[in-house]
Amino acid sequence: MRTLKLTIQYDGTEFVGWQRQPNGPSIQALVEDALAPIEGTQVAVHGAGRTDAGVHALAQVASVSLGATLDEATIGRALNAVLPPAVRVLDVAQAEAGFHARFSARSKTYEYRIVNAPLVSPFLYRYAWHVPQPLDLEAMRAATAPLVGTHDFAAFQGTGADVASTVRTIHQAIWQQGAGYDGPATLRITGDGFLRHMVRNIVGTLIEVGLGRWEPHRVRQALESRARAHAGPTAPARGLFLARVEY
Amino acid sequence: MRTLKLTIQYDGTEFVGWQRQPNGPSIQALVEDALAPIEGTQVAVHGAGRTDAGVHALAQVASVSLGATLDEATIGRALNAVLPPAVRVLDVAQAEAGFHARFSARSKTYEYRIVNAPLVSPFLYRYAWHVPQPLDLEAMRAATAPLVGTHDFAAFQGTGADVASTVRTIHQAIWQQGAGYDGPATLRITGDGFLRHMVRNIVGTLIEVGLGRWEPHRVRQALESRARAHAGPTAPARGLFLARVEY
Repeated sequence: MRTLKLTIQYDGTEFVGWQRQPNGPSIQALVEDALAPIEGTQVAVHGAGRTDAGVHALAQVASVSLGATLDEATIGRALNAVLPPAVRVLDVAQAEAGFHARFSARSKTYEYRIVNAPLVSPFLYRYAWHVPQPLDLEAMRAATAPLVGTHDFAAFQGTGADVASTVRTIHQAIWQQGAGYDGPATLRITGDGFLRHMVRNIVGTLIEVGLGRWEPHRVRQALESRARAHAGPTAPARGLFLARVEY
Repeated sequence: MRTLKLTIQYDGTEFVGWQRQPNGPSIQALVEDALAPIEGTQVAVHGAGRTDAGVHALAQVASVSLGATLDEATIGRALNAVLPPAVRVLDVAQAEAGFHARFSARSKTYEYRIVNAPLVSPFLYRYAWHVPQPLDLEAMRAATAPLVGTHDFAAFQGTGADVASTVRTIHQAIWQQGAGYDGPATLRITGDGFLRHMVRNIVGTLIEVGLGRWEPHRVRQALESRARAHAGPTAPARGLFLARVEY
């Protein structure tokens, strides 16, 4: 058996999320089912992050143990030949024994894209949150800064999650303004881990600041409250991308 | 009655084309049906170009005569409120009397996008032709040059068309190479008019050159033959965009 590291890009629009679920198509199920004829039996593929329904990935990482002796490039081509065009295997590489996409990850980077213009282009609406009212990006940057560092992010955790600790470390969180009539404003956020809905809840809260409804310092207060009720709403899935996993 | 000029952007993937047809949804029908309640009666909307099924528009132009007295910006907002996100009205402007999107057009610019890489991203495959084999873009540029000018383009006309003359003038035809692992190579072509499938037949022919199957001069010979059988295959609709209409 050898352990393989798969790098996978996908448009999450039509999926129930990364994780196999009974109620619809998942990326995990597609990749596992595409690997089964190569291995000759069903295999388990582990993803670095469980992206939710509608969330995209520029570079999800997954690990799998295979006995099949096909070389990595051939496995990549075989997978892409049967996967739908909304899912592409960008790379297949041999990993060290014991490599696990989720447990071996040192940090992850997500991107959240917002189209802040009266209209969102037909080519972008599946890949961004459309906020037509003018956003104060400088105020949003000021409100973002206190989130960097090690904090208890319980206020930004979605309901229904069951984790031992809600403390996470955010290494970097940067807003960039795109170009063009609907060039998206993008939050690029890197951390050692993220709670359920954490990026979407952070973005939904920061938008309150951008719209002038909240003073920037209220985001720090929401963080310190550790109470979900003190943070803002959840931003839509369609703007979120798992951009990178670092090992 | 006043004449309005509408600028419309759309993702053509799910449509039978610009033109109203009995066999499925068209952009023309959507826009006409969205204008009907504003006008209080059915109206006729004329597009500058009849984009085929699956062809996109960055800026289709359409004209319509309206008695309704709503201002242009309000009409634009009303249209976007009922149109699906795959169709956006970018601009509504008053035009001079007698303006007709098709007959008043001086020239049109199309773009054709090709992803020339082993893989095409899940975010691009609806908007480009995926050609995985390496293309010789310099050879394609050499083969494109003789198409500029006034010629009989009968060799590049799709079957089933019925036009008085197959002579057209191409003002400019430029290939640009994009960036990124699958940044598309784009042909930007401007002319006083285009025959049915003309851009797609030109691109399908130039790809034969790019793949090394044809010498560049054979494209000029195909043009001069005025015989469809001497040109190459038709490139897929998904890579084609109506980019601009000049008046």
